[in-house]
This record gives sequence, structure tokens and C-alpha cells, in this order.
Amino acid sequence: MSELNLARRSLLKTGAAMAATLMASAVANAGIPAAQVKKFDAEYDVVIIGSGFAGMACALKAARGGKKVLMIEKMPVVGGNSAICGGNVACPVNPVQKAQGIKDSKELFIEDCLKDGLGLNYTNLLGVIADRCNDTIKFVEETGAEFVPNKMLFEAGHSVPRSYEIKAGTGSGYIRPMYEAIKKEKNVTVLTRAKFDDFVMDGDAVVGITYREGYRFNQKLQSDDLENKTGKQKVVRAKLGVMLAAGGFSRDIWFRQVQDPRVVPTTDSTNQPGATAGVLVKALGIGAAPVQLCWLQFLPYTNPREKGFGVSVNFTNHACMDYGIVVDRKTGLRFMDEHAGRKIKSDALFKVIGADENYPIAIADDAIVKSINPNFVKLPLEMGTVKKFNTLEELADYFKINKKPFLEQVARYNEFIKKGEDPEFHRNLKFSNGLDVSKAPFYGIEVAPKIHHTMGGVMINEKAQVISATTHQPIKGLFAGGEVTGGVHGASRLGTVAVIDALTFGMIAGEEFAKM
Amino acid sequence: MSELNLARRSLLKTGAAMAATLMASAVANAGIPAAQVKKFDAEYDVVIIGSGFAGMACALKAARGGKKVLMIEKMPVVGGNSAICGGNVACPVNPVQKAQGIKDSKELFIEDCLKDGLGLNYTNLLGVIADRCNDTIKFVEETGAEFVPNKMLFEAGHSVPRSYEIKAGTGSGYIRPMYEAIKKEKNVTVLTRAKFDDFVMDGDAVVGITYREGYRFNQKLQSDDLENKTGKQKVVRAKLGVMLAAGGFSRDIWFRQVQDPRVVPTTDSTNQPGATAGVLVKALGIGAAPVQLCWLQFLPYTNPREKGFGVSVNFTNHACMDYGIVVDRKTGLRFMDEHAGRKIKSDALFKVIGADENYPIAIADDAIVKSINPNFVKLPLEMGTVKKFNTLEELADYFKINKKPFLEQVARYNEFIKKGEDPEFHRNLKFSNGLDVSKAPFYGIEVAPKIHHTMGGVMINEKAQVISATTHQPIKGLFAGGEVTGGVHGASRLGTVAVIDALTFGMIAGEEFAKM
Repeated sequence: MSELNLARRSLLKTGAAMAATLMASAVANAGIPAAQVKKFDAEYDVVIIGSGFAGMACALKAARGGKKVLMIEKMPVVGGNSAICGGNVACPVNPVQKAQGIKDSKELFIEDCLKDGLGLNYTNLLGVIADRCNDTIKFVEETGAEFVPNKMLFEAGHSVPRSYEIKAGTGSGYIRPMYEAIKKEKNVTVLTRAKFDDFVMDGDAVVGITYREGYRFNQKLQSDDLENKTGKQKVVRAKLGVMLAAGGFSRDIWFRQVQDPRVVPTTDSTNQPGATAGVLVKALGIGAAPVQLCWLQFLPYTNPREKGFGVSVNFTNHACMDYGIVVDRKTGLRFMDEHAGRKIKSDALFKVIGADENYPIAIADDAIVKSINPNFVKLPLEMGTVKKFNTLEELADYFKINKKPFLEQVARYNEFIKKGEDPEFHRNLKFSNGLDVSKAPFYGIEVAPKIHHTMGGVMINEKAQVISATTHQPIKGLFAGGEVTGGVHGASRLGTVAVIDALTFGMIAGEEFAKM
Repeated sequence: MSELNLARRSLLKTGAAMAATLMASAVANAGIPAAQVKKFDAEYDVVIIGSGFAGMACALKAARGGKKVLMIEKMPVVGGNSAICGGNVACPVNPVQKAQGIKDSKELFIEDCLKDGLGLNYTNLLGVIADRCNDTIKFVEETGAEFVPNKMLFEAGHSVPRSYEIKAGTGSGYIRPMYEAIKKEKNVTVLTRAKFDDFVMDGDAVVGITYREGYRFNQKLQSDDLENKTGKQKVVRAKLGVMLAAGGFSRDIWFRQVQDPRVVPTTDSTNQPGATAGVLVKALGIGAAPVQLCWLQFLPYTNPREKGFGVSVNFTNHACMDYGIVVDRKTGLRFMDEHAGRKIKSDALFKVIGADENYPIAIADDAIVKSINPNFVKLPLEMGTVKKFNTLEELADYFKINKKPFLEQVARYNEFIKKGEDPEFHRNLKFSNGLDVSKAPFYGIEVAPKIHHTMGGVMINEKAQVISATTHQPIKGLFAGGEVTGGVHGASRLGTVAVIDALTFGMIAGEEFAKM
């Protein structure tokens, strides 16, 4: 049994009663005093909470810097949301852009992010991402991640194509090779089913954590963080510090609704079930400054007929919104810039969906579908979320789209493509490659946004150090990266920027540990 | 010297070293274990932090319920922002509306708040305000607050006139009589220059506070909460609980910019200098759930030529935006619904102001000015922020307004008043009383929003209990009301709703204490 528990049961006269009261009192909210820990179960240099992009990048860098690392993951498998996400990654001003004559800049990248971010972004952190992204790409490629060569994706909300396409089609394209590399490092211990409980503090500094081994996440619980008591408690020292890489809270029914009451328990999410606020809440409890916690992002590419992230996102995104169109079936018309940032699109989609599930229809044609990764259409066609038709009329009939105005809309849109200008919604058609909606067969799919990413989190500086709201300074021994942090994305993040964010700040935290 | 400090210096062998480490460790962020307090300096039933609307309402109710109350105020005078605010107060479905045949409802009130609140509001809390507001009005009137009889103000963003006008013209119209009433209560101690430091905790429960007497707020410090060490520490028991009534953080240079990086240190505010985040941050440290902290409101009625709240707000608001117009001097034209909610207007004003201080001009005429409280124009005319002119042409010349389109705009607007419809910005002209911009003399004033109100704060339930993000339950012994709480107003609050919010939840907290 953990020494922590033994301390609770000790019968030393003054010490015990006092210790018992004190531990009970002191652990009231967050932070267990180190003096109360009689014996640590193990000692590490670095303890990492979470095993997604930020966690793994940190683990590799710290290990290669000779540090002894523990990485804990509460779910049965590593990778978190990172493993299942789209996986493409932004990198402003990279060699592939240069080779293709695409003009980009750090300033343009920051400007793009500020637009959907409504000006709330921390531009210092965006600057770090822009400055280091090529190092990040090199780092993951050397580890084994493979990108489609010579290809730059023109992602929604970005002014120019600036995102690498991961060959694997999901974030597993990084997670698998990174995990393999981590397993080869002698000084890294990875524990799954290991759930963080609390920080061990020495004064203001984080010096370790308590956690439970053999933890079994229970999806049926209303709040797993609150109710799940499985596992056996351990307490470990983190001599150089703790890295928070615990991701976001899109699946935290309670906490997300506290931030935004419109997100009710039945609101679906693209996230894996473990995306909860437990670590974030504990970090706030030891003084981490909260940043922009109430900005929750909906992904405007999801389908209402399948649960969670599903298999249709890449199709709706890259076929229909990069190149195709989206219409309101009642009017038959477009209603938004299909290539705008996620907030703009989600807001517009929700307006159309209204209270009567009037799901808009996203549409692509044969030429578009042939121009993108074939994996994107294969699975959703098999699943039946994407439907294929010989004519636009049949598509309109099937989805009950107001036919006459719809056909006129498509014709009008095709003219916009020819002219390279969209007077209706001012969509950037510069990279349309002449792809319009004209060649049979035609593809259609319903769209309904799902909660996807929580922009806010703990405040970090450019070294990934967590800043205290109490002292305004870094909390000694505490680092963070990825979705558990706030500020990079402001009100709404652009696609492919979370990946570079998490990998880069994970890498930077690891570098900081390696230097210590 | 406080026993808390003696404990730190004690030389008992095991206890002392352990105690020293533990207290240092335990007080690392927030929450001092009660077991560490050797002796409390005093005992109260209720300790209230802050002496504005929420604090005073709570103090009166608790005292009248026979409780022993301590109310601490860090500034040299009581009243906080409450004393200097406009002071008018919303009360949906009240007797004056009924007598005037104004149809209102709880649902309409909630709907109005949700509009500028962007749907983020906690409708349960809005419902409580609607249900109890008449009790609140009765309570303050019995205490000595005086409203202009039979008058209902039609405040921006509200669908109908539903706000009482305080005779005094500022919130001092409540604060003065409430303070007199409090001073008459034998069981209430009010201390000014008394600064809250930390909560004393027994397990999860708040059982007291530490604070400093003889504290001298220092406006010159970058962060008073962080840097100011003046005063002598005291520790007191709060047997029934602690009430947070500490207001918002519009003057907290650090914390406000963490939430919204666009609010730089030089951004002016309408608030008194003590409006900082210190209490909020400590509450987060003991687990209070943060709600919508990044929504900061600018008041769209302030003047760039005077510091802080100034003397012009009521004029710009009630003369020019309730009845007059606001124009962009470059175009000479209107650019917004002058009666919309504060976020809509502040956003529109900032767009026009741009990067070159193109302050819009707010305009009223003689009939408008004669129809409102004479105090509203007296002071700003004396100060010189409002200018008076014999003709619109002279007004245009003085403020360098694009004359021809401006004069056409005014003529056009006067036609809208005649017809009762505003096709340009869909402003609600139902209560315009035929007042247009046509009778000399004419009045003009520059407008530039200042940061005014922080909508977010700690989460409370309908009994004003603070909810823990760790347990999802009320934190035993912790209550809150007014601007330090979050959720009532969502993204942006309507005018006159903060007053009813703070008074009502202060009253409710006091009632809860009285029941204990």
C-alpha cells in the first residue's frame, strides 16, 4: 500500500492526528504537500500526463537528453485524440511551399489564426510555432512519420496552402512511429490505465504526482473523473518537473456545459471518450492561470448519422468544403463561405440546422473526388453516410433539396469557378484548380457539427512553462503543451494548427527538460 | 502578532519543522488548513469580502437574521464600483410597468439577456433574478433607496422599458442608505482598508479567512494584489460561511490581458482602481469553477477626453443613444443600431475608431436633452466633453464631420422617427416619443468605449452557493454574488441588469445565512 495511505493511518501522537487533519485539509482541493509523503514509490526526472502528440514529443526529447521519463495514459491505449485526428499539419514557410512557389510568412500565418481566433490569440505563442515548425516536421519525420511528398494542403481559413498531408490519413501516422521510438528508449516507462490524481507540491513547486495504476475508464459514468475510484494509488517524484499533455475536455459533460450552457449532455463530440477536464481542474487548483476556457469549437465536417468523429470528416472537409459546395435543402442555396474557418462555418451550419434538424447537404463531383486521397471517400461510401448519384437531380430528390434553385445555384457556382471569384460569399477560389461541380457521378452527405476542440486551457509561456495566476510567474516544475493549454488558437482554431501546436510545444518542453 | 505567524516561528522539534514545511507547502496556492491556525483573532457567523451592492445586501439580510457579520473592504471607502455606477435597475414585470400598460415577462427578459449574451447565459440564474426582483426593489426601497416615481427607463438591448431610475443618479443612491442601515445593526462590523488574503479550510469547507487590517491600496503598483504587502495579518472564523462580493477585474492589468490579449495596460476603464482579480484567483485556487472568464465588456458611452467613468456616460447613453444618433465623422453617417446591446455597439464603435482615433460623434437636440434628467447634461457641459451649437452645420464643422452626407443622414433619421421604423439599422423606435434631431441647440460628444465589466467569474447556483469544479457540488461555507460571479450575463450584459443581479444574489446569500 502506498506510503501516502500509511501516513494517514499512522498512530504517532501529535504527528498523526495533525498529519491526518492536515492531509485531509491540505488535499482539500489540489496539491499534496511533499512533507506528507513518507516514501515515494519511484523517482523520475520527468513525469508526463497524457500520451498524444505533446506527451510523446516531450517524452522523446527528454529521453534523448538522458532523462528518466514516466509517461502515464489513463486509457487502455496510447495516443488520445491525437491518434484519431485527421493528422495533417500546418507549417508556415516550409521547403515544399518554396519549391512550389507558394509565398507564405510568419505574419500571414499569425494573421490567419487571428481571424477565426477573433483577435484573442496569444501572438507570442503563434510566433513560436512559426519559428520552430520546420524543426518539428524534421523531428517527426526522423522519428518515422511520413507525409505525402511535394504536397501542400490548402486548409480552410488559411490564406495559402501550408499544411503537410500525413500519408496514414490519421494522427496514428505520428503516434505509431513515435511510440515505437519511445519503446526503444531505455529510460522511458509508459503506463496505460494509469490515472493522474494530484500534484505533490513543495511550496509553490511541483515535485511529483499521485496517480492510480490499473485504472479502468468507465464510459458509462456521467463523470469519470469524479466517480471512478478504480486503481491502486502510487506516488512518484518528478525531479525536474511534470508535463501536462492531457488534451481537451470535449467529452467532459459537466465542465463543457459550465463553460457553454448550450452544449448539453446529448451533444455529440468527435473526441475519444477520455477527453475530460480532470487534469485541467487540478492545475487550476494549484494556481495555473485559466485562459479562454469558454471557447469550444465545433467541427463543421461531421455527419449526424454516425457517432463521434466517424469516417466522413475528411470527405466532407476536403471534397465538399475545399472544392465543392454546401446547400440548405429548404432553399437549395449556398449559405456560407465553405472554406472559412471553423467557427464561421459551424455558426452558419447551426443556423440552418435550426431546431428541426435541417441538416445541410455537402456536395462534390467525380473530378473532385478523384483529385483527393481515395481513402477519404472509400469508407463513408461503405458506411452509407456518403451517397452517390448519376445526376444532380437524383441527388436533390434523395436529400429533398429544393431542386430548381439548387440547380441554378450549382450552375452559378460553376461560373464563379471559371471567373475565379465568388461574389456570394467571397470564398477564396485561388486554389480551386478549376474543380467545379459538373461531372457525374455526384456525391452528397449531410452535415452537423460536433464539439471537437477546447481552445482554452492553462496559460503557458514560450518555453511551455505553466504560468500562475497567483504569482504571475511560471509554476516551478510545471509544463504544458497541446489542447490542455490556452491562448494559441484564441476563439477558434484553424485546421492543422493544433497538430503543429501540440507537437511543437511538446518538443519544446522536452528540450527544456533535456537542458536541465 | 497573529497566531498564524507564531506557528511559523515555533521551535517544537517534529511539529515545528513539519508545521513550517506544511504551512509553507499547504499555503502554496490557496487555502490554509484550519488545523494550522492556533488561535483565531475573532469569530463571526458570516464574513463578507467587498462592500458593494452584493456585500451590503448580504450583510443587511444576515444581520437582520440575527447573525454576527464582518464585512471587509480593501479600499478606504465602502461601495466599490456600485457606488459610482449609473445605478438604474432592471426589474421585469413590476408594478410601474403594469400601471403604464407595459407588457413584460420573465421569458422576454431572459430572451433579451440571451441576445447580447450570445446564448451563453445561465438561464436558471436569470430566472431567479426575474422571480425575486420585486422583492429586491422592495428591500432597497425600505432601506432608503429612492427611485423616480412612475418612471420606467427603456435601456439599450431591452425590448421594453423595465428599469427603475435611481433619483441620486448613481449607485450611491443605494449604497448610502444601505451603509447607514448597516451601521445601525449592532452585530455588523465594517472594516475599510481590510484586504482579504486567503481562505481557512477544514477539508473541503471554508471556515474562515486571513486578511490584513490597515491595508493601503497603491494605485501606482502594476499589480496591487501581488505586490502590496501593507497591513497587519488577522485570521477570523466564519462559522456559517464566507460571501464573495469582491466585484470584477476591469482594473487588473495582468488578469484581464490574460483573458483577452487585446486589452493592453493602457486601455482605460470606467472602474474604480480596486477592481482586481485577487479574490477570484484565490477562489479558483480552492476549486471554484471558472465560468466564461474571457468575456470582458466595454461600455460604449464613455468619452476619450476624460479619465475613467467620467461625467459624460449618462448623457451619451440616455440623450444620444436612447434618443439621438451616433455618426462616423469620416462618412457623416450612422453605422449601428444606437439602442443595441453593449457588445454590438462597442464592436461597431471600435471598428470606426480604428487605429487612428476616429472617435464617432454622438448627437442630441434640445427637445431630447430637455426630456431627460437635467443632471445628465449639466456636468459634461461644464467639463467640456459635451459641446453645444446653434446649428447642425456648426456641430459638423467643430467635430470635422463630413457635412453634406451628415445633414442628409439626420434628415433621413428624422423621417424614420416619423414613420416609427429604422430601415438602416432596425433600431426599435417604439419608445422614441417622437423625439428626433431637429430642435436647436444641438449637442455633440465624442465616444470611445472603455473596459467596464467582467461578465465571467465563479460559478454559483440559485442559492448563491459557489460550485466546485473538483466535486461539482457547492463548496461548503462559500457564497458569492455580483460581478465576481459568472454566467448571469453570458457574453455581454445589458445595462441595469448588473445592479439587480448583485442586489438580488447578495440578498439571497444573506437570506441563506439568516436561515442557518
